[in-house]
Amino acid sequence: MAVGDSTLKALLPIAGIRIGTAPAGIKKTDRDDLTLFEINSEHAACAAVFTQNAFCAAPVQVAKSHLSQVTPKYLLINSGNANAGLGEPGLNDANRCCEALADLAGETSQQVLPFSTGVIGEPLPVKKVINALPEALGNLSDRHWESAARAIMTTDTRPKALSKSLELDRQEIRLTGIAKGAGMIQPNMATMLAFVATDAWLVPDVLQTALSAVADLSFNCISVDGDTSTNDSLVLMATGKTMDQPIASTEDPRYAVFLDGLLEVCQFLAEAIVRDGEGATKLVRINVSHAESDEEARQVGLTVANSPLVKTALFASDPNWGRILAAVGRAGISNLDVSRVSIHLGDVAIVRHGQRAEEYTEALGQVVMSMEEIEIMIDLDRGSHKASVLTCDLSYDYVRINAEYRT
Amino acid sequence: MAVGDSTLKALLPIAGIRIGTAPAGIKKTDRDDLTLFEINSEHAACAAVFTQNAFCAAPVQVAKSHLSQVTPKYLLINSGNANAGLGEPGLNDANRCCEALADLAGETSQQVLPFSTGVIGEPLPVKKVINALPEALGNLSDRHWESAARAIMTTDTRPKALSKSLELDRQEIRLTGIAKGAGMIQPNMATMLAFVATDAWLVPDVLQTALSAVADLSFNCISVDGDTSTNDSLVLMATGKTMDQPIASTEDPRYAVFLDGLLEVCQFLAEAIVRDGEGATKLVRINVSHAESDEEARQVGLTVANSPLVKTALFASDPNWGRILAAVGRAGISNLDVSRVSIHLGDVAIVRHGQRAEEYTEALGQVVMSMEEIEIMIDLDRGSHKASVLTCDLSYDYVRINAEYRT
Repeated sequence: MAVGDSTLKALLPIAGIRIGTAPAGIKKTDRDDLTLFEINSEHAACAAVFTQNAFCAAPVQVAKSHLSQVTPKYLLINSGNANAGLGEPGLNDANRCCEALADLAGETSQQVLPFSTGVIGEPLPVKKVINALPEALGNLSDRHWESAARAIMTTDTRPKALSKSLELDRQEIRLTGIAKGAGMIQPNMATMLAFVATDAWLVPDVLQTALSAVADLSFNCISVDGDTSTNDSLVLMATGKTMDQPIASTEDPRYAVFLDGLLEVCQFLAEAIVRDGEGATKLVRINVSHAESDEEARQVGLTVANSPLVKTALFASDPNWGRILAAVGRAGISNLDVSRVSIHLGDVAIVRHGQRAEEYTEALGQVVMSMEEIEIMIDLDRGSHKASVLTCDLSYDYVRINAEYRT
Repeated sequence: MAVGDSTLKALLPIAGIRIGTAPAGIKKTDRDDLTLFEINSEHAACAAVFTQNAFCAAPVQVAKSHLSQVTPKYLLINSGNANAGLGEPGLNDANRCCEALADLAGETSQQVLPFSTGVIGEPLPVKKVINALPEALGNLSDRHWESAARAIMTTDTRPKALSKSLELDRQEIRLTGIAKGAGMIQPNMATMLAFVATDAWLVPDVLQTALSAVADLSFNCISVDGDTSTNDSLVLMATGKTMDQPIASTEDPRYAVFLDGLLEVCQFLAEAIVRDGEGATKLVRINVSHAESDEEARQVGLTVANSPLVKTALFASDPNWGRILAAVGRAGISNLDVSRVSIHLGDVAIVRHGQRAEEYTEALGQVVMSMEEIEIMIDLDRGSHKASVLTCDLSYDYVRINAEYRT
C-alpha cells in the first residue's frame, strides 16, 4: 500500500551527470540493483549528509573518508545488502568495490563513493557487484534517472524522483533527485538513500551549507517507524555546467533561490518516502507551533508521529484524540502547562486549553480521520518556534512486511 | 494472546484491608468495573507513584492532592473510562465520586483516593459510579482480591496478582498485589494501575522510599508500546496489623527484607503486564550491561524494546539481529565505541566487538528466536552499570486490538 498518486513526472537530465544501472543479482535476480553515477565537470562539487546511527555501515564510513579527500567522480550504489554490522571485513568489501570500479574507469579508489541499502549483517557479495560493473559503465546515459530511482529500491513499492527548473541570474538551472526508503525511517538522516544533482555551480562549503539546512527541513522531519537506519545518506552533486560564476557565499542573492529549489526537491522526496511507508494507508502531517524552541517542537511532533497508539488509531480512522494528547504529555517537555495546549484535527478543534473543545463531536473528528491525508495541529502556546513532522499510520501490512522481510 | 501460564496462585488476605466490587456499567454491562479498597488500621500508611505524563488524568491529580493531606481510608477505582483530557469538568467528576463515597461511609472526601482507567477524553459517567457504590460497600471482604484483579481490567486478557509471605523478626507478614495494563505501557510509571497491600508496619516516608525504589526496578523497566499512560498509578497500602514496632528507617534490618518481598511482588506484576501485552506472543528480556550509568543502560534497553522493527522480527521468530544492532546504534549514547559492543541472543553470541560473531549461524539464532521467552544481552563494555527491560513483540493482533479499541 502507499498513499496518493504514484505517477513519476518527467525527469530532467543534468549536464555533467550520467547514470548506469545493471542487475548484479545481490538479493533478487530479476531486477537492476546496481547504480552508477558519473560526475564529469571541472566545476563539480559534492556535499553529503550521513546517518547519525553509531553503527554506521561500512559504505558510509568509506564514503565519508573519500569525500573528505577529493571530489568524487563516481557514486556506486547497491540495493539488497546494507553492508552494515560487519566490522573490518565489511570495510574491506566496500573498498574492494571502489577499487574495482576505479580500475575499470581509470580513476583512483578515493574518487568513488560507495552506498549500500538492504539487509543488515550479511556479507556483501562483492564478486556479484564487481561482475556487474562493466554493464553499468557500458550503459551510462544522462537519461537514466528513472532506472536509477527503481534500481535503488528495497521494500519501496514505487520509485521516488523529482526534477525542478530554476532561473538564476537569467540562466535556467536544473535539479533532479531520487530517493529510496520505506522502513527504518527516522531522523537523522531520515531516508536511507537520496541523490540529488544540479547543474548549478556552487563552491563546496556553500553546497554543504545548503544541503545541511535543507536536510533539517525535509528528510530529518519524517518518520515511518522511529528506527534510524545504519545506511542513511543524502548526496548533492553540483556540476556547475550551466553557470559562469559560482555561488561562493550564502550572501549571494542566487543562493536563496537555489536553496528554495533544493528544499522543494528534498521535501518532495521526503514526503514520497512517507507516502510509501511500509504498510501506509494514510499520510499524516503534524504541525507543532508556539514551542520554546525548534527542537522542542520537533520532539513533540516526533513523539506523536511515533506513538503506536496514535498510528493504529489513524489506521482505523478512529478519532481517538486522547492518544494524541497522551503522546504530547509524554514528550518530555519540561514544565509543559497543559492548560495552554490546543489541538486541531484538520479544521476541527479537538482540544482547547488542555481539555476537549466544547463544540467537538465524534462525527466531526470522524470526517477528518477518514481522509487519506490528515493534518494534526498542536499549539503549545509557550513560545514562537515550530516544526512540521510527516508520518504515516501503522497497519497490519507494516507488521506483515517486517515479519516477512527476510523470507 | 498472551505469553505463559495464566493461572492465578492463591491470594492471601491482608489484615486491615477489605475489598468490594460492583458492576457500574461504565463501558460494558456484564462485568464488575468498580472496585473499592477499605483501609482500616490505626497504623495505616499509604505510598504511591504516579504517571509522569504532563497530561495526568483528573483522578491522578485528585489522588495526589488527597494523599498529601491525610492517610486514605478508601481507594475507589473504575475501569472503562480514564477521566483524562477533560480539564476542570473531569476534576469535578473525580471529586464528586469521592464525595459520594465519603457521604455513604461517613468519612471526609480527602480520605478517598480515586483511580480511573480506560478510554481517554470521554466524560466519566458519574451517576453510574455513584449508583454502584452501595453494592461495592455492601460486599466488602478481605477475600475479594481476585475479583478486584478482574474488575480493574480493560484490554487485559487475564487478571494479574500475587501474594507473598515474609518473616520479619519472627513475625510472618504478607504482601498481596494486583495490577492491570496491556497497552499504553512505558515508564514512568509503566503500568496503568497497581495496588499492593501489606500488613507490615512502616512509617509513611520509609514506605514511600521503598515503593519508589521498587518501582524503578519493576514497573519502570517494562514497555509494551512506548506510550506512557495518563493514568498510571502504583499504590502501596501498609496496615501494620501484624507488627508491634514500625519500620521507621531504611537502616532497620527488617527494611531490606521487606524491600526484597515488595520487589518480588512488583516485578511479578510488571512482568505479568508484559506477558499480557496487547497482541503479545513473546516475552523478551533485554539485559544491558557495562554501561556508564543506569540511565544509559535503560535508554539502550528501551530503544531496543520499542523498536517496531525489532518487535516485528521477534513476532516472526526471525533472527534479524541487524535490527537490534541498529537500535543500539540510534539509542543516543554519546561517544559509543561500537567496536566494543557485544550482543547475545540467549546463549548464542551474535555480535562481538561490533561485528557478527564468527561462530554465528542463522540456524543458531533461529533456535533462540523461536522460543516463547527470549533474552537479549547487550554488553556496552564501557562502564559498570546495567539495566533490565522487559517487553513483548509487535503482532497483527496489536494493530487489531488498537485499531478496534473503541468499536
